Amino acid sequence: MRGAQMPEPRAFLRSLFDAAVAAAAPRHCVPPHLPVPPPGRTIVVGGGKASAAMAQAVEASWPGEISGLVVTRYGHAVPCRRIEIVEARHPVPDEAGRNAALRILAMVQGLTADDLVLCLISGGGSALLAAPAEGLTLGDKQAVNKALLRSGAAIGELNCVRKHLSAIKGGRLALAAAPAQVVSLMISDVPNDDPAVIASGPTVGDPTTLADAVAILEKYRITEPAGVLDFLRHRATETAKPGDPRLAHAENRIIAAPQQSLEAAAAVARAAGIAPLILADSIEGEASEVARVHAAIARQCRRHGQPIAPPCVLLSGGETTVTVRGHGRGGRNAEFLLALAVALDGEAGIAALAADTDGIDGTEDNAGAVIGPDTLRRAARLGLSGAAFLADNDGYGFFAALNDLVVTGPTFTNVNDFRAILIE
Amino acid sequence: MRGAQMPEPRAFLRSLFDAAVAAAAPRHCVPPHLPVPPPGRTIVVGGGKASAAMAQAVEASWPGEISGLVVTRYGHAVPCRRIEIVEARHPVPDEAGRNAALRILAMVQGLTADDLVLCLISGGGSALLAAPAEGLTLGDKQAVNKALLRSGAAIGELNCVRKHLSAIKGGRLALAAAPAQVVSLMISDVPNDDPAVIASGPTVGDPTTLADAVAILEKYRITEPAGVLDFLRHRATETAKPGDPRLAHAENRIIAAPQQSLEAAAAVARAAGIAPLILADSIEGEASEVARVHAAIARQCRRHGQPIAPPCVLLSGGETTVTVRGHGRGGRNAEFLLALAVALDGEAGIAALAADTDGIDGTEDNAGAVIGPDTLRRAARLGLSGAAFLADNDGYGFFAALNDLVVTGPTFTNVNDFRAILIE
Repeated sequence: MRGAQMPEPRAFLRSLFDAAVAAAAPRHCVPPHLPVPPPGRTIVVGGGKASAAMAQAVEASWPGEISGLVVTRYGHAVPCRRIEIVEARHPVPDEAGRNAALRILAMVQGLTADDLVLCLISGGGSALLAAPAEGLTLGDKQAVNKALLRSGAAIGELNCVRKHLSAIKGGRLALAAAPAQVVSLMISDVPNDDPAVIASGPTVGDPTTLADAVAILEKYRITEPAGVLDFLRHRATETAKPGDPRLAHAENRIIAAPQQSLEAAAAVARAAGIAPLILADSIEGEASEVARVHAAIARQCRRHGQPIAPPCVLLSGGETTVTVRGHGRGGRNAEFLLALAVALDGEAGIAALAADTDGIDGTEDNAGAVIGPDTLRRAARLGLSGAAFLADNDGYGFFAALNDLVVTGPTFTNVNDFRAILIE
Repeated sequence: MRGAQMPEPRAFLRSLFDAAVAAAAPRHCVPPHLPVPPPGRTIVVGGGKASAAMAQAVEASWPGEISGLVVTRYGHAVPCRRIEIVEARHPVPDEAGRNAALRILAMVQGLTADDLVLCLISGGGSALLAAPAEGLTLGDKQAVNKALLRSGAAIGELNCVRKHLSAIKGGRLALAAAPAQVVSLMISDVPNDDPAVIASGPTVGDPTTLADAVAILEKYRITEPAGVLDFLRHRATETAKPGDPRLAHAENRIIAAPQQSLEAAAAVARAAGIAPLILADSIEGEASEVARVHAAIARQCRRHGQPIAPPCVLLSGGETTVTVRGHGRGGRNAEFLLALAVALDGEAGIAALAADTDGIDGTEDNAGAVIGPDTLRRAARLGLSGAAFLADNDGYGFFAALNDLVVTGPTFTNVNDFRAILIE
């Protein structure tokens, strides 16, 4: 950067992350998308890491009577006056989520065509709105969910299975609400911003089938609990399919998405004189391997000024996975960053931040972490080997020891992972 | 592309690959880098997939007397008159390579400071110049090599181990040639174009140590043959280190490299009105995971016009690895492409080619393959599942069945993998 001052990498990267989160904040993105109030009643339902904050934003703007219930993750509740907020467990569902989902299904029944069901959907809603289909226990769903999370299954695969074990997902909530009008406001955390995938699409037609769900369990060799495969092979009712006329009364609106948040971060970078390059908003894959590709691209910027010349920042979103082999702690963003540090091996002039926009990386208390060229060296001085922590999937332990965690607490929104690599 | 005609994807992608290979052809890149003939004798030695073609290029331009011996892969020989060409096995070494390497070591001894050793080095030379250190058998080296190739070890790790089991690598050839002047012409197939890594650097100081080699074998839990770990733990002489004054008479010149070839392909694309974007010249990682990241970036181009707007072509180089789990055939480029097709899932407007610039993808008869949006559909019509072939690591079988292999035969050069993704 000629003449200009390079920003302090950590503070700069953090400002990009904050901009990405702010762009998806419900107080900004809910009001412009609210529908016209109906002649009849308005019931607010929904689930997800952002749903309480979305409910609060609805309450702040809604002109008429309103009531309802939304489920959010423990620690993600915010005060509401008219809409009940229930907290439940994520990513593995619990009784609280199950009970809330069943109450929501009951609440939308008996409405008329003059009524409106306003559905507030965001990432995490799939686990939070866990209503097992009749014949299954929550324990069955929990066990399958846990096994899939550990197997390295893609989020789309997880959701296909969840939908077909559920009483509420795959459009079933919208079917239950008929003939009332249904408007879903959705904060996307999925590739392609596909409404059928966000929180497993409770108000959206589902292109996947019971046979797909069976194939996924077979692919990952998940045979326990024994009843689940049998249930899927013999379930009588499919999810609602796309184009099903019974969904004509349901409308889905994406109000925030990963790309929007990456664009917001890009604007902050540009204003600081750092050229942003958005690689992709929906990168999937094994976190450590995704990191190696990012490392190669960052090096290319340093060595050849491609795909963009420094000073620049590479941005990407999406959701990586971690196939757990070790015994350490840490989410996919810590794993990504640790693998990135190992691949860059102290390369000068490259710093990075990776964090979950929901504020919680996996099941720990951090959103993510930061690295710089000195990360491995500083660790070595503490007697810590980056490669060894990586082999143990212990990104959290590694970055905690270096005091390089990024801790925000719940952000009350979720547009999936955020990665920024600053190259001087 | 406004007003202009979109090129036929397969022919266009093939023209990019051909340009990449041509940029690294010895007949173009050897002559400008030849040194001034010495007062004394000139001995030509070397090894690699390009070494015979390099020798031919030397013969065509060299003004004085010349003699010597180079080793190349079976099928990669070209006619030479004064320099002997020996063919040997790659990637697993054989007796022919061992004998040639020992003859080369003998040939450079007894020279004077007035003599020149011209060393022609290219990718593959590491396996082709297989001279086991005293105390080891070729069988020992072969076994370790095979185990490392199957374990998914990075090329740098392979080479560190090879160097420390060798009598010729890690600068030992240059030490043997002293006091003669040594000039190495190198065609790079490695990240960073590091001369110490190309063909395991027979004329270059080696920053890695015997302890590093031991750590790599331990990392991949390679304990057979039993004598090898012991040998490494007790070998008396290290490789020559960078900055070693005994290497002052040796000079290394990179005459072709992955980046140069990617730039040549980019120029062809630009001339056709397709915007090229070089992502990186040295991407490493598991081929199928690298493919998922490329898929996300290609989709981003389609959906958001980033990191570059269509019509465009994403270019990348480097060397991926395949951790073999199935029983199929196929090299890393076929694996990459099959995983790319599966990840793109028939997405419109995206076609791709991936191939090894040496003309041989792994151990098959193809350089690589091509895909288009119809690849999975055409396979399904033949009763073939892309995902199943991928799980079986059978990219070769898949693309052979579709008649989508790219077959060039040996190209007589090697700047590693070449990937091009065309996005309309």
